[in-house]
Amino acid sequence: KHILIVPGDGIGQEVTAVGKKVLDKIAAKYGHTFTYDEALIGHVAIEATGNPLPDESLEKMRKSDAVLFGAVGHPKYDNDPSAKVRPEQGLLKMRKELGLYANLRPIKLFDELLGASSIKPEILKGADILFFRELTGDIYFGEKGRKNNGDTAFDIAEYSRYEVERIARKAFDAARTRRKKLCSVDKANVIETSRLWREVVQKVALDYPDVEVEHQFVDATAMLLIKDPRRFDVVVTANLFGDILTDEASQIAGSMGMLASASIGDGTGVYEPIHGSAHDITGKGVANPLASILSAALLLDISFGMKAESETVISAVDKVLKAGFRTRDIADAQTAADKILGTAAIG
Amino acid sequence: KHILIVPGDGIGQEVTAVGKKVLDKIAAKYGHTFTYDEALIGHVAIEATGNPLPDESLEKMRKSDAVLFGAVGHPKYDNDPSAKVRPEQGLLKMRKELGLYANLRPIKLFDELLGASSIKPEILKGADILFFRELTGDIYFGEKGRKNNGDTAFDIAEYSRYEVERIARKAFDAARTRRKKLCSVDKANVIETSRLWREVVQKVALDYPDVEVEHQFVDATAMLLIKDPRRFDVVVTANLFGDILTDEASQIAGSMGMLASASIGDGTGVYEPIHGSAHDITGKGVANPLASILSAALLLDISFGMKAESETVISAVDKVLKAGFRTRDIADAQTAADKILGTAAIG
Ligand SMILES: CC(C)[C@H](C(=O)O)[C@@H](O)C(=O)O
Ligand SMILES: CC(C)[C@H](C(=O)O)[C@@H](O)C(=O)O
Repeated sequence: KHILIVPGDGIGQEVTAVGKKVLDKIAAKYGHTFTYDEALIGHVAIEATGNPLPDESLEKMRKSDAVLFGAVGHPKYDNDPSAKVRPEQGLLKMRKELGLYANLRPIKLFDELLGASSIKPEILKGADILFFRELTGDIYFGEKGRKNNGDTAFDIAEYSRYEVERIARKAFDAARTRRKKLCSVDKANVIETSRLWREVVQKVALDYPDVEVEHQFVDATAMLLIKDPRRFDVVVTANLFGDILTDEASQIAGSMGMLASASIGDGTGVYEPIHGSAHDITGKGVANPLASILSAALLLDISFGMKAESETVISAVDKVLKAGFRTRDIADAQTAADKILGTAAIG
Repeated sequence: KHILIVPGDGIGQEVTAVGKKVLDKIAAKYGHTFTYDEALIGHVAIEATGNPLPDESLEKMRKSDAVLFGAVGHPKYDNDPSAKVRPEQGLLKMRKELGLYANLRPIKLFDELLGASSIKPEILKGADILFFRELTGDIYFGEKGRKNNGDTAFDIAEYSRYEVERIARKAFDAARTRRKKLCSVDKANVIETSRLWREVVQKVALDYPDVEVEHQFVDATAMLLIKDPRRFDVVVTANLFGDILTDEASQIAGSMGMLASASIGDGTGVYEPIHGSAHDITGKGVANPLASILSAALLLDISFGMKAESETVISAVDKVLKAGFRTRDIADAQTAADKILGTAAIG
């Protein structure tokens, strides 16, 4: 199996290095041979080539069996609204070119981290949500620009029936293997793309009579996720709403530093933490690599069908947490100072 | 002073009745004369006239000194994505026609409700956020529709410089009277309207050197609001992001049933709870009217400049909570059954 490591920017470099180390250990333990290559994306790619996703990187992605990705982004562009070339364009192009229309974000709290969240333990205990975020449509990919001499900006959100249907089916299929509940999130009381979304999900639901479906508005969902996270099983939603709700839901898992995601579609799958490049802590060796390690676990499971190997990674993470080790972001008042580890050590 | 009561749908009827009662008490106590009228909006207006905002209602709004509004919405339309006439159209038209471009949503926890939230008390204590949600632009009001025989839906998000500037100035002005911190929320790494937004806010900031400004992405903000709500003072954001983030932030105040909002702009101000029509509890007499009462307090303060009267309402709410009385939504395990009151009783 050939794995492409795409660290990207900021802490992406540090955390994917640890993710790779874990893949190596699994290969040794189970007698697999994993070969690796690296490719550039984001700010580092712009610096090196002027292009946030060079053709060479895209070629390498297409040819690999799976991609372990870090993060992209740099404050330099964030504070310059007029920048024409941006790290995020590389990420969006990768998603589009590889047809990664389904972004799976499992939100599950390790029992040991009950205390690390800002939400009360009794609200959190047992919460287990699987998000399906649509990843190649919506306002992310529609036409955008300026008019009136630059005084008016516009973005077009767009969805077609087949785009909603394919992600809905993936979400319903997953619900069948879980608690058989699906919540579809939209803003159908205002937005036309949401009305199409709801229409299609209602139709697909007819093929899954064994799955209990509910439709929620995105504003209500943002509230319910915090008020009562256990009411959710599988959640399916559009690109922008998914972006917002899954970041919010990271608090259910104690920290953003714990959350992995899998982007899948027609070809190579891409596995990445949901956190960003975090330039404020880059290079300090304090980033939490567990999201990258758990992304490697998703990679083993989904792209390679290696269930046992994936489980081994997850229980290793569990063991480290049980032993009381923490990175800074998931430490709480009870954590002894000598149990707070840096990126490499906890890996 | 002439006040228009616009109950709208569902629990809107029950809670505005209590809000009005409180206005009456204030008038009696302070020797003011408030006259009232009522008008239709939403589902009840559609049922009566076919129109979610009849011209007569709009006329009455324009002529009144302030509007106390309830909520609109009905499950009937939510589950029918093809409905052409919807209650929400009445609400959006009211906002647009009255030029209500600034929606103020103060999020402040009454100390007595520290236990009612799903967030840990030590995270919440002292949180005090004032949201400025833009209310007459964005994807809410752009062109929307279908193409490809109805197989593709689109929505256009749009912002012009002056729209961002006027709400930004209101937010900066408010920050000056508070802790002098402003957080502007956008998705400038992906969305063009957000880049215009950031550009304009950066420019307006030059006129407020005494206010500390930060720019956050909407996904990060959704996370930070729960992780560390005390880091925020004034938050300013676009219509859609504001819709999502303020519903989420309701958990900071213990319950959505506690949150009031003021929509202001060029003419008559409109005051309303941020909660919706809640048809699941309509007519049961259990709805929490405190948001409507607190909306009446905002009305007295902002539209009538009656600071003392407004304070009186807020401290009355505080007293009721201190005495241990709760509606169901803000009751916790410690609340004695005989202290759980219905809508009318707590009012
Ligand atoms: C970096 C950014 C473009 C990206 C997104 O909005 O999709 C990120 O927030 C994510 O969730 O992967
Ligand atoms: C009912 C709906 C159209 C409305 C909105 O999205 O603005 C509501 O959620 C609100 O926040 O006032």
